[in-house]
Amino acid sequence: MSLTVQDIGEQGLLKRVQAFCPSAIVGDDAAVLPITPGQSIVITSDVLVDGVHFSDRTTPPESAGWRAIAANLSDLAAMGASPLGITVGLGLPKTTPVEWVERLYQGMSDCLAEYGGAIIGGDICRSTVITLAITAIGQVDPNHVIQRSTAQPGDAILVTGNHGSSRAGLEMLLNNDTAPERASLVRAHQYPIPRFDIPTISTRVSGMDSSDGLADAILQICRMSKVGANVDRASVPIDPALKQWVSEEQAIEWALYGGEDFELVLCLPFEQAERWLKQVKGAAIVGKITADPIVQLIDSGEARSLNLDQGFQHFSNH
Amino acid sequence: MSLTVQDIGEQGLLKRVQAFCPSAIVGDDAAVLPITPGQSIVITSDVLVDGVHFSDRTTPPESAGWRAIAANLSDLAAMGASPLGITVGLGLPKTTPVEWVERLYQGMSDCLAEYGGAIIGGDICRSTVITLAITAIGQVDPNHVIQRSTAQPGDAILVTGNHGSSRAGLEMLLNNDTAPERASLVRAHQYPIPRFDIPTISTRVSGMDSSDGLADAILQICRMSKVGANVDRASVPIDPALKQWVSEEQAIEWALYGGEDFELVLCLPFEQAERWLKQVKGAAIVGKITADPIVQLIDSGEARSLNLDQGFQHFSNH
Repeated sequence: MSLTVQDIGEQGLLKRVQAFCPSAIVGDDAAVLPITPGQSIVITSDVLVDGVHFSDRTTPPESAGWRAIAANLSDLAAMGASPLGITVGLGLPKTTPVEWVERLYQGMSDCLAEYGGAIIGGDICRSTVITLAITAIGQVDPNHVIQRSTAQPGDAILVTGNHGSSRAGLEMLLNNDTAPERASLVRAHQYPIPRFDIPTISTRVSGMDSSDGLADAILQICRMSKVGANVDRASVPIDPALKQWVSEEQAIEWALYGGEDFELVLCLPFEQAERWLKQVKGAAIVGKITADPIVQLIDSGEARSLNLDQGFQHFSNH
Repeated sequence: MSLTVQDIGEQGLLKRVQAFCPSAIVGDDAAVLPITPGQSIVITSDVLVDGVHFSDRTTPPESAGWRAIAANLSDLAAMGASPLGITVGLGLPKTTPVEWVERLYQGMSDCLAEYGGAIIGGDICRSTVITLAITAIGQVDPNHVIQRSTAQPGDAILVTGNHGSSRAGLEMLLNNDTAPERASLVRAHQYPIPRFDIPTISTRVSGMDSSDGLADAILQICRMSKVGANVDRASVPIDPALKQWVSEEQAIEWALYGGEDFELVLCLPFEQAERWLKQVKGAAIVGKITADPIVQLIDSGEARSLNLDQGFQHFSNH
């Protein structure tokens, strides 16, 4: 029996295919291509599959379209880039309703109209499963690229907003829970907001987005920067509607490992971070970068290590 | 019953989704984004699905990878652009052998090593069918972009090489025909060559690549340029191995409608075209652009209209 992708998992497979990619430009939310001394291009791609990344049960086509665009715009935002354009590759079964496709494009257009960029090209072909391949192109000043690898001990860890809401909203949708007092959670899942509203960068900033969870983002930044972090559990911003709905333990679980909140996780000097708190709606300082390369969650004075195993594994069996 | 994509076909669906795209930058082989006064970025995307665009029966994984890259590089070549980088989105069933994936990347890398560009990013996810989403990014001098819409009456129609070979090679592979005297046809199908070897452009050139067939390319250029064409059947370059294998009628059928030859179809002043003939290996002048917006195939003096209905229709039933 030959080894399958399931046997080695997503991380194992990524390691193998990265052997075919120039290492210098892989590892951040998006690739950076220098074009002129003052301008670089930023490119990011996502493939989304019906039943894996979206489904009619939890995301009407407008939401599937919005989410696909928001996820890619969030990768641009996480690089400090602004959007230039989007290409859309679409694989469709023959029996897909035309109305479904039009509603998908409506959702994509709505998100682009709000946050910038336009659909500039793409491809439509036949497939056995609805597949959405998005590539987003942005531009950035090469001196202001946000990378994962430049966090320094003493930096504040700032997040731009609530975590756990998207995962909670998904749970509500799967359980046909339409409680109006929790509508903000469903909205966070169906219509996430890429965070282009951080201040113009005039300081050293390291970071990425929290698409695969807040814990994953902090762990990735620490790994790439060869530092550690102390994360203060009580400081992680969580929607009050979520706190009222589930136990504190469940809420923090979703906040750390739920994923798809598409907030930015940024490491920068404390003084600057405190200034940004006032300028970025919903932002909070959740911890501090340390020299000791261990990532710890500080919980009422007790420290425990963050665990990535609970994070997202695309090829796992559960 | 709601209308499905099968009911309206690929062209019908494209028309509907183009309503969501800015019209000025859609319609060529790739989208052009102005970056600086002297430099534009060119972007093109393709989605390829196992069983639709490639299969283990006709393309080993190296060939599937090579073809995917070559098709996208060909779109860059058709815009007059040179390659900067490629993103690869990959949807994989859990049971896909790791070796298959590595051989796919080997084929992609081989093509990039030969013709320029590198894999700069991508995404791998779970799917029910192997899906390959490629985006190629290139750069071009804005004054030297090759568009479909600028052909003028009197222009020569130049093609950079043989047509029909890819379709013939596919037929051989489907029939387990391994005749060594026709190996060039199999090679044309499995390892097509993007044509970056046209001379530096110092004249007005209109054109596109022949990925969907030579007839389709000429018809698209004429439609976009609001002109017509006389195509001389006897001048269409066809591999001698193909001519010896099948009837003349079959060979010209595949040359016009077979597709995936990935040659360039260029319209330019005759004097320039004749100079290019000497510089571009395999090139031939196959006809002339006319003011009368009718596309005709001239066959031993008799004219008949080219018929697009025989071209590629992704959602058709046959």
